[in-house]
Amino acid sequence: MRYPIHLIKLIEHLKKLPGVGNKSAERFAFDLLSWSSFELKNFANHLLELKDKLKDCPTCGCLIGEDNCGFCDANKRDTQTLCIVSSTRDAFAVESTHQYKGLYHVLGGLLSPLENRGPDKLRVNNLFQRLQNQTIQEVIMALDSTLEGDATALYLKKELNKFPVKISRLAFGIPMGSSFDYIDGGTLARAFIGRSIV
Amino acid sequence: MRYPIHLIKLIEHLKKLPGVGNKSAERFAFDLLSWSSFELKNFANHLLELKDKLKDCPTCGCLIGEDNCGFCDANKRDTQTLCIVSSTRDAFAVESTHQYKGLYHVLGGLLSPLENRGPDKLRVNNLFQRLQNQTIQEVIMALDSTLEGDATALYLKKELNKFPVKISRLAFGIPMGSSFDYIDGGTLARAFIGRSIV
Repeated sequence: MRYPIHLIKLIEHLKKLPGVGNKSAERFAFDLLSWSSFELKNFANHLLELKDKLKDCPTCGCLIGEDNCGFCDANKRDTQTLCIVSSTRDAFAVESTHQYKGLYHVLGGLLSPLENRGPDKLRVNNLFQRLQNQTIQEVIMALDSTLEGDATALYLKKELNKFPVKISRLAFGIPMGSSFDYIDGGTLARAFIGRSIV
Repeated sequence: MRYPIHLIKLIEHLKKLPGVGNKSAERFAFDLLSWSSFELKNFANHLLELKDKLKDCPTCGCLIGEDNCGFCDANKRDTQTLCIVSSTRDAFAVESTHQYKGLYHVLGGLLSPLENRGPDKLRVNNLFQRLQNQTIQEVIMALDSTLEGDATALYLKKELNKFPVKISRLAFGIPMGSSFDYIDGGTLARAFIGRSIV
């Protein structure tokens, strides 16, 4: 016996979500069967309206609703610093620290020689334009500490040196609350390099 | 900064899926943003058509598509045995063992005194009718080995004794491939009781 075809197709859709395998997708699909028609309709309509209701801000690239971009609001933000992130999600993550009140620039990805993703795939021209026109004095690179993050930081540093701005990258070191036993050598080495006098 | 309202609502929908918390829902929502309009439309339409395209078989209660119920097909199945399961998913799980070729009966849940779910909430009247009309000789209870599963088995055994059928329940014991160290006392005890001469 196989699942009815409509159920199989639903499972295929659900499997496209990140980290969702066959088992989870089946679990989701059977759960969806127990949702009311009203709930299903609401959910489906939300999916259909996704592209209309959520856009990328043409300036910073962050995800915005139907209002103006809150990340670019010059009245509320410090317009002298610019934080470069890979995705909108990362911008929200930085926001949640309450440590930063400046502007953002979403690259829309990271450089990846392996996946053949060069600077032309990222929102870098847009970034250079912003640096020319605006009064930005410091650019903070808040990028992953991965091969791709390092490659992107290296490329950006070279390009940003052409502008009269201070360039910084987030500190590397021991994550909060972690025990020494579980920290890998690479992290420890970078924590040593970045040690500070107390 | 908060997420745009449309994104928040989408996350709320996704959090209703089983085992999906805030973090996973956010991950799913941001992933859905990268789906094409075509994919989103397809997915949404599948959700909208769910209730129309998938029904419960009026006889056995299994989920069926637009065809007749494959579980009830007298030409292909052994109509002398009936397997009682809690949900359609369990019926598919039994099918996947290829050990059983008989009929099924989906209860649509298990008895639960704690959640105030009595026999009136299960498809039991339907079950008794089937036993009266049909030529079933053995009823196999394939139910969870939980408090609810045991309560349901106890209740069904009492009721099914009124019919001239053999009643059995799946064996309890050590799961395949498991090491003795990791088996709880309850499972071991039941494995002792159910031991077989070799």
